[in-house]
Amino acid sequence: MPEQQPPITIGVVGARGLVGQEALAILHQRGYSPKALRVFGSSRSVGLTVPYADTELTLEPLEAITHNPPTFVLCCADGATARSTADLLSKSTSTIIDNSSAFRMIPEVPLVIPEVNGEQLVQQPRVIANPNCSTIMLLTALNPLRAAFGVRAVQVSTYQAVSGAGRAGLESLRDQTHAAVQDRPIPDGIFPVPCAFDVFEHESAIDPDSGFNGEESKMIAESQRIWAMPDLSVLPTCVRVPVQRAHAQAITVELNRTVSVATVQDILARAPGVNIAPPGSPLTPASIAGSDEVHIGRIRVDPNDARRVLLWVCCDQIRKGAALNAVQIMNRLIELRHQSSSSGRTTSVHSAPGYASTS
Amino acid sequence: MPEQQPPITIGVVGARGLVGQEALAILHQRGYSPKALRVFGSSRSVGLTVPYADTELTLEPLEAITHNPPTFVLCCADGATARSTADLLSKSTSTIIDNSSAFRMIPEVPLVIPEVNGEQLVQQPRVIANPNCSTIMLLTALNPLRAAFGVRAVQVSTYQAVSGAGRAGLESLRDQTHAAVQDRPIPDGIFPVPCAFDVFEHESAIDPDSGFNGEESKMIAESQRIWAMPDLSVLPTCVRVPVQRAHAQAITVELNRTVSVATVQDILARAPGVNIAPPGSPLTPASIAGSDEVHIGRIRVDPNDARRVLLWVCCDQIRKGAALNAVQIMNRLIELRHQSSSSGRTTSVHSAPGYASTS
Repeated sequence: MPEQQPPITIGVVGARGLVGQEALAILHQRGYSPKALRVFGSSRSVGLTVPYADTELTLEPLEAITHNPPTFVLCCADGATARSTADLLSKSTSTIIDNSSAFRMIPEVPLVIPEVNGEQLVQQPRVIANPNCSTIMLLTALNPLRAAFGVRAVQVSTYQAVSGAGRAGLESLRDQTHAAVQDRPIPDGIFPVPCAFDVFEHESAIDPDSGFNGEESKMIAESQRIWAMPDLSVLPTCVRVPVQRAHAQAITVELNRTVSVATVQDILARAPGVNIAPPGSPLTPASIAGSDEVHIGRIRVDPNDARRVLLWVCCDQIRKGAALNAVQIMNRLIELRHQSSSSGRTTSVHSAPGYASTS
Repeated sequence: MPEQQPPITIGVVGARGLVGQEALAILHQRGYSPKALRVFGSSRSVGLTVPYADTELTLEPLEAITHNPPTFVLCCADGATARSTADLLSKSTSTIIDNSSAFRMIPEVPLVIPEVNGEQLVQQPRVIANPNCSTIMLLTALNPLRAAFGVRAVQVSTYQAVSGAGRAGLESLRDQTHAAVQDRPIPDGIFPVPCAFDVFEHESAIDPDSGFNGEESKMIAESQRIWAMPDLSVLPTCVRVPVQRAHAQAITVELNRTVSVATVQDILARAPGVNIAPPGSPLTPASIAGSDEVHIGRIRVDPNDARRVLLWVCCDQIRKGAALNAVQIMNRLIELRHQSSSSGRTTSVHSAPGYASTS
């Protein structure tokens, strides 16, 4: 008879942030009981509550996570908090799924999009990194084409919502737009330039050697890592636009083979996590905010070189780009535990990859 | 002694539109006397006035253009009005510089960006077409690199201001944003979807065969024509953003040779009509609205293939993208007249290209 496992418990670190809030909303939709949940926040927010289902969850200080550590920890905070969480849990059997960039380039920590490289979860790693939101939507859209035809180069221009910079980004857009429409002086916001009625390069720091900003460098390094193609030409230009929520990308991918629009459409229509936008009404980021899928529209093939394919992709970057991807990883790991438990296999904590290399 | 030419007169057709108004502002800056100017409008606007310098110019009906036809006609209206204007002036010696798409693909009508193919004006054609605003900024930025290294392919994603759709586009953005910030129902605008807090594909019709929309098809055909490269791979994705004025483009150009950032910067810094944005503050469309240059920032080279160059380009699409380009063409033609008059050459109206093929 299979070994009975204790009930799953889930900790959400950074539960009051946009990603933490979205993670809780998804967990509620997935039917997790409030009893299975614990929420952790910064020292400022300890003692405050967050709504969940019909009840309220009280924020605990991060240090309390070492008492009865949760089975899974969804870390929805910055890199420093992620590192503290990993340190605190280094002697536990908790599994951390982290949304920050702290662990993404550590070779022992898998960087996972379930639809792209979910097989890396089979080893049941103890720390898993969620890629950057822009990487998740890019690779979820392109991976079916890479698998079918091989990929030679990727160019992508982004149209990124201000909520990618958190709640303060949304407040900047609201306050600066209000002032602009009332002809008042524009108040300072969190971006280097006013975000009302303008577009501007992503606010992350520019690398003086390459000229790419931080967001672009992440997309390059993470795509190369997830696809195990360290020399792949990935050329992003990351731009903020005055949109509240959901990112868009204009992508040109150069494949190894010539293709037709019909073939591309056929392959993408069968791909996991992808929705082909119906013709007729334009696919826009605001129109798909709150949805789970990576939405693809405007599939075109270069009339002068049929190896080049153009796509217009929209995705809720807080949902599939962050919180949902993390919950999908957790649910895959829960499935794997049940499978290995049913088959009599057990996972040795000591052989699981993760902690040693993250500290 | 050189023959004395009669004073230049200039007619502006569509003088109350955004491009017409900008043309008048530029003519005023260039020092043209109100006595040299006549303005023409639709039947609705005949008898109304437009301000010019310290005076007002009264709008005449288009039909009146045949009485003492102006030396130059800056046509700042739609394609149908452009064709009517050409028909009315077919027996005159007027030169038409047209901002619509009516004549752009007619082989006998030169399609001119002075910085790119200004030599086509030497023959003093009687009708000259102004390219689409997105083509003008793309080729003004890329032409110095094409001349130096040769070009193999161009990918470009646009971030286009709503004023590209005229005054009604600006009104849609204002009214819909006002409603959105006040949580009122969003009123209908001129775009297929609300333009407040969203980005969407350019509203021009999509070609069912290629999947490219009208704006993209123009950029492809016009770039191939101006550069005389009919098989060049030009891959635009044209997108409207909630910006009032000035377009931006994220460009990847594939050259025939490998280059360095320093070489590209050096060549572009010496190019006509181009301004290299100073480092430090982000280059944004709103920040350069009202200026004459094509502004280039974020020059990068693909670390994996140094033939690929990335640029971020911003340009006031009403100014250099339309009205200014037309005035520059006119001024070049005026120079050429003076040169040929000084050297004793005269231009035969009958040998000048233009009218025959436009009707």
